[in-house]
Amino acid sequence: MSSKRVVIAGMGFGGLQASKALAGSAVELTMVDRNNYHLFQPLLYQVATAGLEQEAIAYPLRGLTRRWRGASFLLAEISGINLAGKLVLTDAGAVPYDYLVVATGSRTNFFGMESVAAHAFDLKQLDQAEDLRNNILLMFERASRETDPERRSALLTFVIVGGGPTGVEFAGALRELIVYVLSQDYPAISVLETRIILIEAAASLLTAMPADLREYAYLKLLSMGVEVLLENRVVGATAESVELHGGTVIASHTLFWSAGVAAAEVAEYIEGAERGAAGRIVVQPDLSIKGHPEVFVVGDMACFLEEGVPLPMMAPVAIQQGAHVARAILAREQGRISPPFHYCDKGSMATIGRSCAVAAAAGFKFRGYIAWLAWLLLHLYYLIGFRNRLVVMMNWTYAYWFHERQVRLITAKKRRAASL
Amino acid sequence: MSSKRVVIAGMGFGGLQASKALAGSAVELTMVDRNNYHLFQPLLYQVATAGLEQEAIAYPLRGLTRRWRGASFLLAEISGINLAGKLVLTDAGAVPYDYLVVATGSRTNFFGMESVAAHAFDLKQLDQAEDLRNNILLMFERASRETDPERRSALLTFVIVGGGPTGVEFAGALRELIVYVLSQDYPAISVLETRIILIEAAASLLTAMPADLREYAYLKLLSMGVEVLLENRVVGATAESVELHGGTVIASHTLFWSAGVAAAEVAEYIEGAERGAAGRIVVQPDLSIKGHPEVFVVGDMACFLEEGVPLPMMAPVAIQQGAHVARAILAREQGRISPPFHYCDKGSMATIGRSCAVAAAAGFKFRGYIAWLAWLLLHLYYLIGFRNRLVVMMNWTYAYWFHERQVRLITAKKRRAASL
Repeated sequence: MSSKRVVIAGMGFGGLQASKALAGSAVELTMVDRNNYHLFQPLLYQVATAGLEQEAIAYPLRGLTRRWRGASFLLAEISGINLAGKLVLTDAGAVPYDYLVVATGSRTNFFGMESVAAHAFDLKQLDQAEDLRNNILLMFERASRETDPERRSALLTFVIVGGGPTGVEFAGALRELIVYVLSQDYPAISVLETRIILIEAAASLLTAMPADLREYAYLKLLSMGVEVLLENRVVGATAESVELHGGTVIASHTLFWSAGVAAAEVAEYIEGAERGAAGRIVVQPDLSIKGHPEVFVVGDMACFLEEGVPLPMMAPVAIQQGAHVARAILAREQGRISPPFHYCDKGSMATIGRSCAVAAAAGFKFRGYIAWLAWLLLHLYYLIGFRNRLVVMMNWTYAYWFHERQVRLITAKKRRAASL
Repeated sequence: MSSKRVVIAGMGFGGLQASKALAGSAVELTMVDRNNYHLFQPLLYQVATAGLEQEAIAYPLRGLTRRWRGASFLLAEISGINLAGKLVLTDAGAVPYDYLVVATGSRTNFFGMESVAAHAFDLKQLDQAEDLRNNILLMFERASRETDPERRSALLTFVIVGGGPTGVEFAGALRELIVYVLSQDYPAISVLETRIILIEAAASLLTAMPADLREYAYLKLLSMGVEVLLENRVVGATAESVELHGGTVIASHTLFWSAGVAAAEVAEYIEGAERGAAGRIVVQPDLSIKGHPEVFVVGDMACFLEEGVPLPMMAPVAIQQGAHVARAILAREQGRISPPFHYCDKGSMATIGRSCAVAAAAGFKFRGYIAWLAWLLLHLYYLIGFRNRLVVMMNWTYAYWFHERQVRLITAKKRRAASL
């Protein structure tokens, strides 16, 4: 087997899985990402709600490549792909490849609403989680010394758009942060003054879940004190308000958007490729693109039709596709035919609050404490690195026992005192 | 005892100690800081060298005020002090006081060298430690793909100015980061290509230490591979070079400055006060300022003469002064005379590297492993919060066993992909 150059662009779940499976084989592996770490996105919302330090959900990629024979890492921003010349163009130079795996994921989709894009928080990157945490805590600081009741109410109103797992988990975690922690921190603010409004365009939350779990999650959030607006949507925003379809305006300084994602910019660099919804690249049964069997697309960026329906943009799909592409490349190098991809749906889950989650897997449905435990264990399992697991477990244990979240720091860079 | 309003400005070691001692007494205590956390500055250099997450050395102040009867916290930037009207002016409004404790510490002193101020890193605040860590790691990323030997060498040269504890500890920690961790992460970079140059104006490092410990620290750093330039000083800098007195120019992209501090800006707001060296406020024997017995200054900002010599700007002085002022206020409220302050010098210490530190206390001198253990335990003891101690201990243990520092993340905010 000759030493073929495999370039993997993007070190999310898909790219990392492909890299892991190819490392140590005879290929020359180059892992490219604009960050020097793999980010465990499913726990970003816990960073945003002061439950975890940001370092606990990021793992330095060179900590992997140092152990992986034949693998190297390149910190670079991708600026183009030359399919004919087999080159990935980056701000650190052009990288030649024999095989290319594009796994650069997705970005937030504001559906063209510029006012929302300008004022909403979203959670795709580590610093966004820190920004959102800073903002939530700052709202409480400002409210604690605001005397005007209307302005105070606006500061303490948090609007969340999107009733998928991220929106539901964030709403629950924010509510618990307020009820258990901030209510103690800010004696001048009553929990009754705070509002969390979760807005979903569909007729129910967690639409991927079975009906009874959807209902359970909905009632649980209501009982926790989260207001849920179904069949409604946001059409505009300012720094101090959120406008709904139908004209209602909610006075709020915090709008969190988790109502949609679209393929990341890199998708636009793949010229001539067929595009599906949300700018995703339509891939062949083996995950390569038409006319370029040496270029694969995996994860959120790939539009793969299973029984005529595109697979959802979520981590398990990316992980399975990453592993599949690695096998496909090794098969081809050994002269075998690369098989078609099939997604094995292992189910989905979402945690709502303390000791409370919903999970649907392999025809079984779980809710409450047992689903919550399963959620904890699965997330710990998929986290990378012994130390990160330890830190996260410690934080969770601490929070569970003491109803305390210690990472409630406002780390926003303020104007610094001039040095002498 | 009437309920007097005590305002404590600045929540470093001095302000925090004063607050702690006054909390629960009959005074109405307002703690003011521009950050919502107390920062454990002595470990900032470990955040900068990827040994600790930043959250581990910060403790949310409201986590204290919620337990302290009569205490409240105000997040605010101080913009002036009205001594006649007994008001602290802030961006969150004016705060009236009956007693004021000014404990706003120090800022970096570049001695008027603008080019150095523009290009050097310093360590006073949390985000500066993150910036410095990002920079160090980024230099290795850039060097790993730089082919020009001169440019490569400049990227891998780190200049540290100031041979006090911070400079020595940072130099040692950086050297170990490079030798144990980065040398594994970057197979294309040899340790021999890297340079750490520690520059000190005096004839020895750690001038506050006994001569044999100074010599020991010096030889230890040399044996670790740190270049030490004594009786030399920096006179200018650009983004890619450092100029020494005498004309020598060192090609380097990283200049860390720990060669001096001066009283923070707030000192300038105390009108009419006598000023000592570095802009510090000269205080009376009881730490109040002349003509205003209700205003105290403690810590780095106070210039207190003990046997004609100003006390050093270090944490133990601030802690003792904070406690003293709290006692003085309570004494006055009870009609007793507030006693003069005396500093009890408990010695000083600095860690140089793995299992190696120097410590001088109560006439005894320690070095090597025993001093290092004492250093670890003392720093853990003075850290605030059970969780922080646990996280720091875990990181230290992990680093000691595995020669690993996992927080080597480049978290610099990059240009973000435009959202849709």
